[in-house]
Amino acid sequence: MAGVTVQRALVRIAGDDRSNGFDTLVAEEPLEIRIDGEAVAVTMRTPGNDFELAAGFLLTEGVVERGDQITEMRYCTGDEPQQYNQLTVTLAADAPGMAASGFRNFTTTSSCGLCGKASIDAVRTRSPYSVADDPLRLSPTILAALPARLREAQRVFDATGGLHAAGLFDAQGALVCMREDVGRHNAFDKVIGWAALEGRLPLTSHVILASGRAGFELVQKALMAGIPALAAVSAPSSLAVELADEAGMPLVGFLRRERMNVYAGDRRVTRLKLRTAD
Amino acid sequence: MAGVTVQRALVRIAGDDRSNGFDTLVAEEPLEIRIDGEAVAVTMRTPGNDFELAAGFLLTEGVVERGDQITEMRYCTGDEPQQYNQLTVTLAADAPGMAASGFRNFTTTSSCGLCGKASIDAVRTRSPYSVADDPLRLSPTILAALPARLREAQRVFDATGGLHAAGLFDAQGALVCMREDVGRHNAFDKVIGWAALEGRLPLTSHVILASGRAGFELVQKALMAGIPALAAVSAPSSLAVELADEAGMPLVGFLRRERMNVYAGDRRVTRLKLRTAD
Repeated sequence: MAGVTVQRALVRIAGDDRSNGFDTLVAEEPLEIRIDGEAVAVTMRTPGNDFELAAGFLLTEGVVERGDQITEMRYCTGDEPQQYNQLTVTLAADAPGMAASGFRNFTTTSSCGLCGKASIDAVRTRSPYSVADDPLRLSPTILAALPARLREAQRVFDATGGLHAAGLFDAQGALVCMREDVGRHNAFDKVIGWAALEGRLPLTSHVILASGRAGFELVQKALMAGIPALAAVSAPSSLAVELADEAGMPLVGFLRRERMNVYAGDRRVTRLKLRTAD
Repeated sequence: MAGVTVQRALVRIAGDDRSNGFDTLVAEEPLEIRIDGEAVAVTMRTPGNDFELAAGFLLTEGVVERGDQITEMRYCTGDEPQQYNQLTVTLAADAPGMAASGFRNFTTTSSCGLCGKASIDAVRTRSPYSVADDPLRLSPTILAALPARLREAQRVFDATGGLHAAGLFDAQGALVCMREDVGRHNAFDKVIGWAALEGRLPLTSHVILASGRAGFELVQKALMAGIPALAAVSAPSSLAVELADEAGMPLVGFLRRERMNVYAGDRRVTRLKLRTAD
């Protein structure tokens, strides 16, 4: 199995200087996910936590609703050298499965009229959880402390500068799980897959933090896991905000120290005075 | 059709201050691409240049090899209000088509042994162009000037902070085409699709610049369009470097003013002294 990072030779140019050296790159390899032997997806990912990635992918696509609907996961072995890049998953009889999921459902829609609203409705239909009544309230103090805690936990980032991270925090702002990947969606899938395999779904009264931007699919993934709040270090997209708004989910963007923009669900971000983060 | 940006109300928090305001968000909407009426893909994208996006997607997936293998593209219209989110494409008889492309081919691989090398081999098999013998030579002076030219051309970025950009430059560093999108892959597809529809493929002696990181799929897309060089403002992944290396393509990362890392193809980055960019 490839490591999380790879050393590569390179030529560094700085003005007129040119020198040979080495750099630490984030590893990227394909992972094929199979259900009962049939390939259903290939994702380019950073090796590591592959079982979590597969579980999170299947859960956030609606193929399973709980971790225990995955009865077995194993690397595919055959005549070729074992590459740890193919995972086969066996589903329980009560899992929704591929047909019931949103995944690939586009092949069955025949009418015109695809739009952001239809995408939002699809998430609402598919998610087994509602976050609208979650008791979570977040203070700006707690939110302001999250990015630094995520960065502390990111050992790999400093070496490569090439990894997205997702951090799951409890209502008090304590880090529960952090995962990294070359793909931001994969980092979310790994965190959510970890929780699914630990039997922790739905993730009521938690908040998930993205190290970069927040698009529609990150909000979708959070909602599929019952996470009632999402924060991001950078900008959200229009459809991410619309989905969060309709779901009653606080969506915080440009979270940088004591500054933040609350794009949706601001009633659940308390007005308590900001205290210095512990 | 939604615009490229959307205005949204928000609550700004800065320390103990809390104020209502508006923010400009990058628009994100689904685009469904159909071939002869059958849906083949849905991508979340920033509306605009949709025909280019579809053409670039089909070209970089190997469904077509030239722009003129697309005989018609039109928005799908029906009973629903026209949303401009569904495009149907008609292919010429000599187009490779879905079956011959790499897209979804994972459903037909039955042996174990998926690995980065297999992904690299697949690109080599599918691309109708080779960049190994391209005469392009790039000087550090020309490379150093590219990011500023891309940013100048990005009118939307400053407003939203949420858009990826791709810029196509000629051998002298002049900007030929710039496209933006909420997804970095889409920005590349739009640039390449523009060139395909203009009949400019292969893009010999050009360089394409990514505003962010360079993963395997960006190198793949460049190679499918015959672009012999790729530069990125941030880090490349391990597999991006391997693919560029095997293809004989210069891959430059962390391109920031006169500093840059050459991860592959350094023989084609000249040793001319750095001059002040014009």
